[in-house]
Amino acid sequence: MLLKSMAQKAGMSPGSLVPISDEPVNPTRISIIEYDQDYLEQVEATDEGMVAKEKASPRVTWFKVEGVGQVEAISRLGEIFGLHPLVLEDVVNTTQRPKVEEYEDYVFMVLKSVHYDQDTGAISDEQVSLVLGRSWLISFQEGGRELFGPVLERLKKGRGRIRQLGPDYLAYVLMDAVIDNYFVALEALGDEVEELEDDLLEGHDPKAMHRLHELKRQAMGFRKAVWPLREVVAWLSREGSTLVHADMHPFLRDLYDHTVQIIDQVETLRDLLSGLLDVYLSGVSNRMNEVMKVLTIIATLFIPLTFLAGLYGMNFKWMPELEWKWGYPAVLAIMLVSVIGMLIYFRRKKWL
Amino acid sequence: MLLKSMAQKAGMSPGSLVPISDEPVNPTRISIIEYDQDYLEQVEATDEGMVAKEKASPRVTWFKVEGVGQVEAISRLGEIFGLHPLVLEDVVNTTQRPKVEEYEDYVFMVLKSVHYDQDTGAISDEQVSLVLGRSWLISFQEGGRELFGPVLERLKKGRGRIRQLGPDYLAYVLMDAVIDNYFVALEALGDEVEELEDDLLEGHDPKAMHRLHELKRQAMGFRKAVWPLREVVAWLSREGSTLVHADMHPFLRDLYDHTVQIIDQVETLRDLLSGLLDVYLSGVSNRMNEVMKVLTIIATLFIPLTFLAGLYGMNFKWMPELEWKWGYPAVLAIMLVSVIGMLIYFRRKKWL
Amino acid sequence: MLLKSMAQKAGMSPGSLVPISDEPVNPTRISIIEYDQDYLEQVEATDEGMVAKEKASPRVTWFKVEGVGQVEAISRLGEIFGLHPLVLEDVVNTTQRPKVEEYEDYVFMVLKSVHYDQDTGAISDEQVSLVLGRSWLISFQEGGRELFGPVLERLKKGRGRIRQLGPDYLAYVLMDAVIDNYFVALEALGDEVEELEDDLLEGHDPKAMHRLHELKRQAMGFRKAVWPLREVVAWLSREGSTLVHADMHPFLRDLYDHTVQIIDQVETLRDLLSGLLDVYLSGVSNRMNEVMKVLTIIATLFIPLTFLAGLYGMNFKWMPELEWKWGYPAVLAIMLVSVIGMLIYFRRKKWL
Amino acid sequence: MLLKSMAQKAGMSPGSLVPISDEPVNPTRISIIEYDQDYLEQVEATDEGMVAKEKASPRVTWFKVEGVGQVEAISRLGEIFGLHPLVLEDVVNTTQRPKVEEYEDYVFMVLKSVHYDQDTGAISDEQVSLVLGRSWLISFQEGGRELFGPVLERLKKGRGRIRQLGPDYLAYVLMDAVIDNYFVALEALGDEVEELEDDLLEGHDPKAMHRLHELKRQAMGFRKAVWPLREVVAWLSREGSTLVHADMHPFLRDLYDHTVQIIDQVETLRDLLSGLLDVYLSGVSNRMNEVMKVLTIIATLFIPLTFLAGLYGMNFKWMPELEWKWGYPAVLAIMLVSVIGMLIYFRRKKWL
Amino acid sequence: MLLKSMAQKAGMSPGSLVPISDEPVNPTRISIIEYDQDYLEQVEATDEGMVAKEKASPRVTWFKVEGVGQVEAISRLGEIFGLHPLVLEDVVNTTQRPKVEEYEDYVFMVLKSVHYDQDTGAISDEQVSLVLGRSWLISFQEGGRELFGPVLERLKKGRGRIRQLGPDYLAYVLMDAVIDNYFVALEALGDEVEELEDDLLEGHDPKAMHRLHELKRQAMGFRKAVWPLREVVAWLSREGSTLVHADMHPFLRDLYDHTVQIIDQVETLRDLLSGLLDVYLSGVSNRMNEVMKVLTIIATLFIPLTFLAGLYGMNFKWMPELEWKWGYPAVLAIMLVSVIGMLIYFRRKKWL
Repeated sequence: MLLKSMAQKAGMSPGSLVPISDEPVNPTRISIIEYDQDYLEQVEATDEGMVAKEKASPRVTWFKVEGVGQVEAISRLGEIFGLHPLVLEDVVNTTQRPKVEEYEDYVFMVLKSVHYDQDTGAISDEQVSLVLGRSWLISFQEGGRELFGPVLERLKKGRGRIRQLGPDYLAYVLMDAVIDNYFVALEALGDEVEELEDDLLEGHDPKAMHRLHELKRQAMGFRKAVWPLREVVAWLSREGSTLVHADMHPFLRDLYDHTVQIIDQVETLRDLLSGLLDVYLSGVSNRMNEVMKVLTIIATLFIPLTFLAGLYGMNFKWMPELEWKWGYPAVLAIMLVSVIGMLIYFRRKKWL
Repeated sequence: MLLKSMAQKAGMSPGSLVPISDEPVNPTRISIIEYDQDYLEQVEATDEGMVAKEKASPRVTWFKVEGVGQVEAISRLGEIFGLHPLVLEDVVNTTQRPKVEEYEDYVFMVLKSVHYDQDTGAISDEQVSLVLGRSWLISFQEGGRELFGPVLERLKKGRGRIRQLGPDYLAYVLMDAVIDNYFVALEALGDEVEELEDDLLEGHDPKAMHRLHELKRQAMGFRKAVWPLREVVAWLSREGSTLVHADMHPFLRDLYDHTVQIIDQVETLRDLLSGLLDVYLSGVSNRMNEVMKVLTIIATLFIPLTFLAGLYGMNFKWMPELEWKWGYPAVLAIMLVSVIGMLIYFRRKKWL
Repeated sequence: MLLKSMAQKAGMSPGSLVPISDEPVNPTRISIIEYDQDYLEQVEATDEGMVAKEKASPRVTWFKVEGVGQVEAISRLGEIFGLHPLVLEDVVNTTQRPKVEEYEDYVFMVLKSVHYDQDTGAISDEQVSLVLGRSWLISFQEGGRELFGPVLERLKKGRGRIRQLGPDYLAYVLMDAVIDNYFVALEALGDEVEELEDDLLEGHDPKAMHRLHELKRQAMGFRKAVWPLREVVAWLSREGSTLVHADMHPFLRDLYDHTVQIIDQVETLRDLLSGLLDVYLSGVSNRMNEVMKVLTIIATLFIPLTFLAGLYGMNFKWMPELEWKWGYPAVLAIMLVSVIGMLIYFRRKKWL
Repeated sequence: MLLKSMAQKAGMSPGSLVPISDEPVNPTRISIIEYDQDYLEQVEATDEGMVAKEKASPRVTWFKVEGVGQVEAISRLGEIFGLHPLVLEDVVNTTQRPKVEEYEDYVFMVLKSVHYDQDTGAISDEQVSLVLGRSWLISFQEGGRELFGPVLERLKKGRGRIRQLGPDYLAYVLMDAVIDNYFVALEALGDEVEELEDDLLEGHDPKAMHRLHELKRQAMGFRKAVWPLREVVAWLSREGSTLVHADMHPFLRDLYDHTVQIIDQVETLRDLLSGLLDVYLSGVSNRMNEVMKVLTIIATLFIPLTFLAGLYGMNFKWMPELEWKWGYPAVLAIMLVSVIGMLIYFRRKKWL
Repeated sequence: MLLKSMAQKAGMSPGSLVPISDEPVNPTRISIIEYDQDYLEQVEATDEGMVAKEKASPRVTWFKVEGVGQVEAISRLGEIFGLHPLVLEDVVNTTQRPKVEEYEDYVFMVLKSVHYDQDTGAISDEQVSLVLGRSWLISFQEGGRELFGPVLERLKKGRGRIRQLGPDYLAYVLMDAVIDNYFVALEALGDEVEELEDDLLEGHDPKAMHRLHELKRQAMGFRKAVWPLREVVAWLSREGSTLVHADMHPFLRDLYDHTVQIIDQVETLRDLLSGLLDVYLSGVSNRMNEVMKVLTIIATLFIPLTFLAGLYGMNFKWMPELEWKWGYPAVLAIMLVSVIGMLIYFRRKKWL
C-alpha cells in the first residue's frame, strides 16, 4: 500500500483518465445539497443537465461525489465545471500526495483521510479531493464510506455557522472532519505502541520485532500523509485565495494547529518506537547474557569435580591414594571446598 | 500522557466546548485583581456582572481563572470579553501546543507549565492560557496549583516595576514564572541523568535500560513542550503586537534567551542519554565477554585433563602404562605441564 | 557506476569535448521531425546543411539525436544552433547531475532516465539532454534505446494537444516520459524490498545482508538522480523562462508533483530498508540466543549427571556406597530428580 | 557543569541580581586603563566617583572588571553607565549562552572563554561579558584568571593598531583573545582523541568506553559554547552597530572565520568520536569471537576423545574389544585421526 | 592533519605573520607571466622593484608564487599590492577553510587542492590562495608541487580563450585545475571503497575495521574541504564581483556544477561506508553464530554419550546391566539412536 505505483501510466499521454485500481469499479454517486440560511434541499443527480442547472444556483451548492471509478461521469463533471484535465486526472488517480492548487476560478485540494478499523486494527487510507468555486464545492471521495455523514447531519439540523457561511466554510468543515479521523487512528496507534512497550519492558515477546516493524511502517505511512497535509492547510491559512473569505482565517489557523499536533504526535511515536528498538535489542542481549551465565556457572562448578572423579577412576596399578582409608572422604571434602570457592567467586562477580 | 488525544472530538462541530478529561470537573474560580501604582484590590468574582464591570476599569485588571473544567463559566467569560469561539475551545481543550495568536483586540497565548514533584520524582504538565487586552489580562490555569502565588505576592507588596507598568508586563512576569518552572524540572531531570550515568559507569544495574527509557521519554516530552514555547516568545519579542509596549522588548528578549537555554539543556540531556545507551550496551557486551572468558578458561584448562584421566580409566586388558610404577606420577606431571602451558597462553592473550 | 569519474579530464582545457566512455563509439543518429497541426514529416539528417535548413522552419522542429559518442557530429550541431561550448561538453560528458540552465536563446536541461531490465533485475541509467529554442527542440540520448518511441507514435497519430502546441509542450512530454520510467523502476525496487522483507520476517536467508546492501545502493543511486531532477522541474514550474508559455504551468506543476511522489517513495524505501536492517540484526541475535539455549540446556542437564557417574567410577578401596544393595538405584533416582528439577527451572525461565 | 541551573531563581522578580554560585564570593576588582596614541594610564578603581570621572574621559577608557560575585559593586557600575537591569543580571548570572544585544548607547556581549589545564587535562569555562560604549569598554570576567594579560601588555608596549583605534578595536582584540583559547583547548582535546584512537586500534583498553564517553561530553560542551559564539560574531560582522566602525569589518570577518574553523574542528571531533565508538564495539565483538573460537576448538577436539575413553571405561562383563591385544593402540589411533581431522576442518574454516 | 591547530598563535596580535609549520621554510619563488593575445613573457622575480613595475603593466600579469614560508617576501608583496594584513595572514597561515572575500580593489580566495599519491595511496592537501585584481592575478601555493604546470603550458601554446580573456578567466582556469584534482583523488578513494566492499562481502578481513575507519576519516576530510569550496564558487557565480566579467558566468556555473558533483560523490561514499559498517558488523555476528553452532552441535552430540559411558563405568557391586550378555551392544545401540535423533533435530533447525 505504501508503494502504490503509477507505473502502469508510463507511456500514456499526460492528462489521460485511468482509474488506478484494477478492482471492480466503485459506482460514482453524486448528491447535490443546495442550501442557504433558510433553505436546504438534497437531491441525487441523475443526469448532467441537473448538475449544470444546480451549478448556476445563487445558493451554496455542495456536489458530493462518492466513488471515482467511473471515469466518464467524472469527465462530464469536469466539463460542466470547466476543470483542467490534470485536475480530473488527480481526482481519479488516487495515489496523489495531499496538495492544493489554485486555478483561475476554483481551488483544488487533495487530502488523504485515514480510517482505523476497530475490529482488525488495520489503518487504511482514502483520497478526498475538494474543488472550491465561488458559490459551490465539489467533494470527491475515493470509496463509499460515510465520511461526511455527520457534516451532512449538521447541515440539515441547521446548527451553527455552517448554514450562514459560504462554500469556503463548508470546505473547512469537511477538512476538519478528515483531520479528526487522524486523531482517532493516531490514538489507536498510540495504544498499540504503549502495549508493545509494556510487553517489552516486562519480558520476552518472540513476535516483538515483527510488531515493532509493523508499527514503524504504519507511523511512516502516517507521516507521509500528514506532512503534505500540513502544507496544504498552511498555504490556505497564510497565503489563501480570493475564494476564501478573510473571516475563515482563525478557523484555518486552528486547522493548521491540529495538523501540527498530529505531526507532533507522529514524531513522538517514531521516537518512542526507535527507543523501543533499543529496549528490545538490549533485552535480547541481556537474555543471552543470562543464558551464558547459567551455562558458565554449571560448567565451572562441575568440570573440575568431574576431572577429580576421573582422576581417581584411573586404573594405574600404583596409585597410593586409592588405598588410603580417608582417600574417598578427602576427595569429597576437596570437591566441597572447590564448589564453595566457586560460589563465593560468582557472588562477588554478582552472577548469583 | 504524551499522546493525549483529541479523538473524542471527531465528528463534532469545530468550536464546540468539551473539556478534555473525564475526571470530575475542577471548579472554575475567578479572582479579579485590579491595581495601579497606588491602589490594589483583590476580589473573588461571584457573578458575570462583576466581571463585566471590572473589565471596564481604567486600572490594570488581572482576571485569574483557576480550573477550566466548568465549560459554562468559561463560555460566559468569553462572551463578556468578545473572545473567538476557537480561543475558548483551546482554553478548555488542554492538549494544545504552546502558541500565540493575534486577534483584533487581544493576543491569545497558550503555554505549558511543568511541575516536578519532589516526592515521586514525576514531572507533570499543565496548560496555562493568557489573553492580553488593552488594559486587562486573563490567565487560565488548567488545575488549581498555586502557580502564580509568588507573582501575586509581589504585586501586593508593591515591589518593583510590576505595579507601574501595564498588563503586558504582567503577562511577561507570568510567562517568566512559567518558564522558571522548566529550570526546576530540568535540574531534577539532569540530576537523575547524572545518577544513572554514575551507576552505568560503575557497574551493572539490571533496571538501567528501564530508567534510560523513562528518562528519554521525559526529555522527549519536555522537548515537545519547549520548542513551540520558544516560537511563542520569539514571535512576541520580534514581531510583537501593538498591545505590547516597545519597552517590553528587552524583557521579552531575555525570556527568549531563557527558552533557548532550556532547549540547549534539553538537547544536551538527549545527547547525554543517547551516549548513555552506548555506554550501557557496551557494558552488556563487556560483561558477556567476561562471562565467556571465565567459561573458556575453566573449560580449556580441565577438558584435556579430564580426557587424560578418562584415557587411563579404560579397562583394556593390555595397557602397559597402567603397570608402570611411575605411570601415575607421570600423568600427574603431564597434567601440571598442560595447565601451566594454558595459563601462559591465557596471560599472553591478556585474558588473565 | 555510482562513482563514474571525471578524473580523466583533469589537466584539460575546460569546454573540451571528450566522450566519457572508452567503449566503442555509439553512432550518432539525427532524426528531424517537423510538424504543425496539419503537417508532419520525419527525415533522417544526412548532412549539416539539412539540419541548418530545418532549423529555420516556422513549424515546430524536433531534432532527435541518439548516441552522443561522435564528438564531431555534436560539435557541428552546436555550431549550427550557436550552443555554448560548456553545453556541448555537458551533452557529451554523460556524468552530469540533472540541471537546467537558461541561455539567451535557449534553455538547456540535463535529465537522467532510468531503465529497469525485467530479465536481470538491473537498473541502469542514461543521460537525456534537451535544448529548447523558440521553435525547435533538440533531444540528446546517451544510448540508442527507444526511449521516446511512444511520444513519436502519439505525434504521428496526431492525438491530443501535442500537435497544437509548441516545442515547450513537446519538451514537457519528453520529460514526462523520462519521469514515468522512474515509477516503473521504483515499483520493481519496491517489489524486491517487500520480497526481502517477507524473507527476513519468516526466517534465515544467508544472503539477506548482501541483498539489503544491494538494494540500499540502488535506492541511494535513485535518490541521487531524482533530487536534482525535482529542482529542475521546480525551476521550470516556478521561475520558468520566456521560452515556456504560461499555459504550460499546470503541466509543469503536475510534473513537479510526480517528482515529489518519486522522492517520497524513494525515502520510504530507504526508511523501510533501514528498518529491515534492524529486523535482520535482531534475527541474527535471536538465532544466536536459541543456539546458546540449546547448548546450555544440554550441558546443564548432563554435566552434573556425568559428574555423579564419574564419582562412583572412582577406584578407592573404601567407598561404602559401592557395597550397598540400593546404591545403584539410588544414584539413578538422584539423577532423575536432578533432571526433572532442571527442566522445571528451564520452563520457569521460559527457555523451553 | 553542563547543566548549571537557573532553578534557584524560580519565583524571583526578573532582573534581580543573585550570583549563581554558592562559593565564597570572588572579590570584584576594577582596573581602569585610559589611553590614546600617546598616553596610557592604568589605575585601580577604589570608589565610584573615580569610575564616573573616568567614564567622561575623551580618551579610550577600558574598565577591566575581574570577579562578578560582589553584586553591589556591579550594581553601582550599572547605575553609572546606565545599563539595563537585565544586562546586569546576565553579567552576574554566569550561566548565559554567548549572545549580543544592542541597546541605545551601548552593545552588550556575553562570551564563554575556555581554559585547558595542562596538569589535570580538565577543560573549564568562564563567562566574559563586554559592554561597548562610544568611547569606553567594560569587560567583566567571571573569575580572576589573567585572561587579558597579553592584551594589556600589548597596549602598554604601544605596539600596532591597538593604541590608534577606538574601543571597538579593543573589543575585537579581547574577543580574539577569548577565541584563541578555544584553539588551545581544542588541540588538547584533539590530542586526547588521537591517543584514544591509537589505543583502540591497537588493542583492548578496559577504560576505553569511559574515556570515549568523557571526550564526547567535552566535545558536546564545546559545541554548546561555540555555536552561539559564532552567531554573536556573525551579527557583529554582518549587521553590526553604529558603535562599530566600518574599518572593523575585515577584522570581524576574520574572527568569524576563526569561529567557523572551531566549529569545523568540533564537528570533526564528534564524527571521529562516533567512528571510534564503532571501532570500539567491533573490537569487543571481535574479541568475543576469538574467545569463542578458542573454547570451541578445545571442546570440539577433546569432547569426542573423552567419550571414547569413557566408552572403554565401562564395566560390562562382555566387551570383546577390551580383550583384544591391539584394542588400546587402535583406540589411540582412532583418537589421533579424529584430532587431525578436526584440525584440518578448523584450518579450512580459517579458525587457526 | 585533520586537526592542524592555530593554537600557537594564541596571545599574539591579530594580523601577525607567522608560518604555520615548524618545518624548514619552503623558499618563496615568484614567477611573473605577462601576456596578451599576441605576446607572452615569463620572468623570475628577483627583487621587489621588478614586481612593482610588472604590476603596472596594461597586459594581463600573473604573479605565480610558490612556497609561502618566507614571511618577509610575502609581506613585501602585500605592500606593493596594498593587501590587507589579514589577507597576508591567511595566505601564510595555511589552515584556512576555503573562502572568498571581496576588498575594494581585489578579490581574495582561499582554496584547498588535494593530491592523491599513487604510490602510497595517501591523500594530502595544499592551500592555494588567489588574489584577483583589475589586470593582474596573484596565485600563492603552499608547497612547490607543479599544480599549475598544465595551465602554464596552455598559456604558452596560445591555445583557446585563455590568451584572449582577462585575469578573471585565468583565475577560473586555475580554480578548475584545483577542482579537477578532487575528481582524481575521489576516484582513488572510490576504488578503495569498492575493494573493501568486495572483501567484506566475500569473507573475513581482520583489518577491515581499520580500513573502514581510515576511509571514513579521509571522506570526512574531503567533505570538510569541499563544502566551503562550493560556497566560494557559488558566491562567485551568483553574486560575483565587478572584477569578474559577466561572460564568466557560464564558466563559473559549470565550476559550481563540478563542486556539487564532488559533494554528491563524497556523500555517496559516506553512505556507502556506513552501509559497509553494517555489512561488517553483521559479518562478525554471523561468524560468531557459526562458531557457536559448531560448538553446540559437538557438545550436544557427545555430552549425553559421555554420560552414558560414565554411567556404566560406575563400580557399584550390584549393577545388573553389567552382567547381561547384550548390555554392551544395547548401550552402543542407544548411543547410535541418540546421535541420529540429534542430527535430525539439527537438520530441522537448519543448523546443518
